[in-house]
Amino acid sequence: SAAMMIQCRERLRTELDNVVDFWLKYSHDNVHGGFFTCIGKDGKVYDELKYVWLQGRQVWMYCRLYRTMDRFHKPEILEAAKAGGAFLRKFARVPGTSSGQWKCAFCLTRDGKAVKIQRTIFSECFYIMAMDELSRVTGDEDMQLEAEEMMKQLIYWVQKDSSGLGRPQLPGDIPINSMAVPMMLLCLVQQLVEGRGQEVVQKYRELGNWCVQQILQHIQRNGTAILENVSPEGSELPGCLGRLQNPGHALEAGWFLLQFSAESGDEELQRTAIDKFVELPYQYGWDKEHGGLFYFLDVDGHCPTQLEWSMKLWWPHCEALIAILMAYSQTKRPELLERFSQVYEYTFSHFPDAKSGEWFGYLTQEGRVALDLKGGPFKGFFHVPRCLYMCERILDDLLATKDSAI
Amino acid sequence: SAAMMIQCRERLRTELDNVVDFWLKYSHDNVHGGFFTCIGKDGKVYDELKYVWLQGRQVWMYCRLYRTMDRFHKPEILEAAKAGGAFLRKFARVPGTSSGQWKCAFCLTRDGKAVKIQRTIFSECFYIMAMDELSRVTGDEDMQLEAEEMMKQLIYWVQKDSSGLGRPQLPGDIPINSMAVPMMLLCLVQQLVEGRGQEVVQKYRELGNWCVQQILQHIQRNGTAILENVSPEGSELPGCLGRLQNPGHALEAGWFLLQFSAESGDEELQRTAIDKFVELPYQYGWDKEHGGLFYFLDVDGHCPTQLEWSMKLWWPHCEALIAILMAYSQTKRPELLERFSQVYEYTFSHFPDAKSGEWFGYLTQEGRVALDLKGGPFKGFFHVPRCLYMCERILDDLLATKDSAI
Repeated sequence: SAAMMIQCRERLRTELDNVVDFWLKYSHDNVHGGFFTCIGKDGKVYDELKYVWLQGRQVWMYCRLYRTMDRFHKPEILEAAKAGGAFLRKFARVPGTSSGQWKCAFCLTRDGKAVKIQRTIFSECFYIMAMDELSRVTGDEDMQLEAEEMMKQLIYWVQKDSSGLGRPQLPGDIPINSMAVPMMLLCLVQQLVEGRGQEVVQKYRELGNWCVQQILQHIQRNGTAILENVSPEGSELPGCLGRLQNPGHALEAGWFLLQFSAESGDEELQRTAIDKFVELPYQYGWDKEHGGLFYFLDVDGHCPTQLEWSMKLWWPHCEALIAILMAYSQTKRPELLERFSQVYEYTFSHFPDAKSGEWFGYLTQEGRVALDLKGGPFKGFFHVPRCLYMCERILDDLLATKDSAI
Repeated sequence: SAAMMIQCRERLRTELDNVVDFWLKYSHDNVHGGFFTCIGKDGKVYDELKYVWLQGRQVWMYCRLYRTMDRFHKPEILEAAKAGGAFLRKFARVPGTSSGQWKCAFCLTRDGKAVKIQRTIFSECFYIMAMDELSRVTGDEDMQLEAEEMMKQLIYWVQKDSSGLGRPQLPGDIPINSMAVPMMLLCLVQQLVEGRGQEVVQKYRELGNWCVQQILQHIQRNGTAILENVSPEGSELPGCLGRLQNPGHALEAGWFLLQFSAESGDEELQRTAIDKFVELPYQYGWDKEHGGLFYFLDVDGHCPTQLEWSMKLWWPHCEALIAILMAYSQTKRPELLERFSQVYEYTFSHFPDAKSGEWFGYLTQEGRVALDLKGGPFKGFFHVPRCLYMCERILDDLLATKDSAI
């Protein structure tokens, strides 16, 4: 088992080096700044549009690697992150529909003109992640303040009044607790408080607890299912929306909860996270016929209406690897390590492109590459490197403990 | 060939009867009115939401069948159409963002509360189709006026000022001539003028010509490709958006152009329609490996970013059957009849569900059923029956001519 972990860590390390090289080589726009995000199989930019989620995520990932891993503490990574951050600050924010509020665009032209604004909070989330992490490597307090200002805006939209997001209020459009929202906010809370003083920790404590409660509301059907959308009071919603399952999101929420439980020493939360957000979505999300995690499912076995429901996407597998390995590292339960091996085996035999580097993102249910792009509107320098980075670090800790025990 | 056409017409006729029965049996909401549109494999309603495109389309289709085919001139079909029309008139229209303007919702709850409004014109298009056709069977002039009022609004949004659609004006969001828009407007012009007096014909003449010109702008790359999105001046747009091909839309536009050319006696337009909107999309859209028409393609062979690009959907096959058979009926070129046979063969061996009736809508590239629903947010009582209806009528005409020639 230690031999397996060492071998696995070696593979993750090599893979992370290669993935970082791929994006350093192909994604930088040295003319207008920022990152190209639509990158084909062989690294060629097939569209110059710049997706803002992915700009923010790439800045965050570069900074995180630079700050916490010696081998990535290199000037070219810092410079790329700073250039990406400058592009974001200059172009991503646009005036919102409510006066005095800012929105972040979803998509920009190569030279920074807004193309589209989503009526959700996610561009803003990744903007905050980028600014906070960048402020940590540059020491620029303005950026930290900017992140906290934007965070205040987000909390207002989520908890008080969402009209600034620009969605018309319609009588049939009932409020929803959608997993993605508390999950992303919890991720942001963990980002903003990490290593900061008690004042900041205190400031976000209540929000963190609220996010956890909102996430736990998604445990439904007497604890047998995680549903992606529930009512704000935590009851099941009618129709497809209410029956929707997204195993990748459940697993991602799982490791955010595991981190939170470890920091707060909440053992009951840890048990719930493992049972309901790691074991359960793996059980119902895994395709027993072809292997891999489904993208969407319907809890009653109806056919989901999403055309891509049965496809195997890279990111649920990335999130599963982190969640399962973190659960193992906290409990040392051997069946979790076996499960990790199974997901690892599927992931590494299907997604990485041995020929041109990086990972394919979209497979058919049967495991054939359906889209051969390496970067697209929703795939950038984020889930793959974050997974490799998180797993490498967890394995480092596990192996260090083992060593010291000898 | 006449024997083949007779056999084919028999199959189409039986299939149309079965499809009409399926929707009469499973889709009517006798409590709140309107039609259920989310209908599973075996006819069970899996979601009570009512999609407005599909409400309008079902009203239109029922009326068209009632009005033009003796065997569907039945009270239950007329009553269903009237009930659907009443539901639409009562609930589909909601106040728009600009004062004095109306929008149609995209989706309603079972009891008619608006859930979502799209920032496009298509709900309105199907509302107009429904109202115009319903006015023809009921003789209700108010409905006809309502259709024409809504049409005026649509033309204003498309030709003068689109701000009433609710999309924020963004500097990077350049104006686009998207195939769907002139294609749908041409369809509406043909609907509104059919059999009406010279006054109405005159009223929409200019718009019809404008739609044809806008559609012809999509012929690009020296006549070798139909592109889904071009600039308002008819030049190619950058990136994925500009390179996108949607063979099903091109073929659908093809038969609208063929109808237009037949009515106006424009032989050059007929040639262009057949060469560029029937032959060409069939050539590049047909999957030489597995058969069937792709949903999306990139003219330069990049991978489209739409996850479902390689799937085989029912509606492009429906549109292809109409377009090719209409092209044959106008020219009697035997290779068009061969082509029709090939698409017919693929379509009838893959989409109809022999067990529970109606057609599957969504197949994998390889031709396996990927979603087993019979109705969903975009699949209702429309493309399948319209195709069966149009093809049966064209074959009726072809066979009648043959008979009289004997």
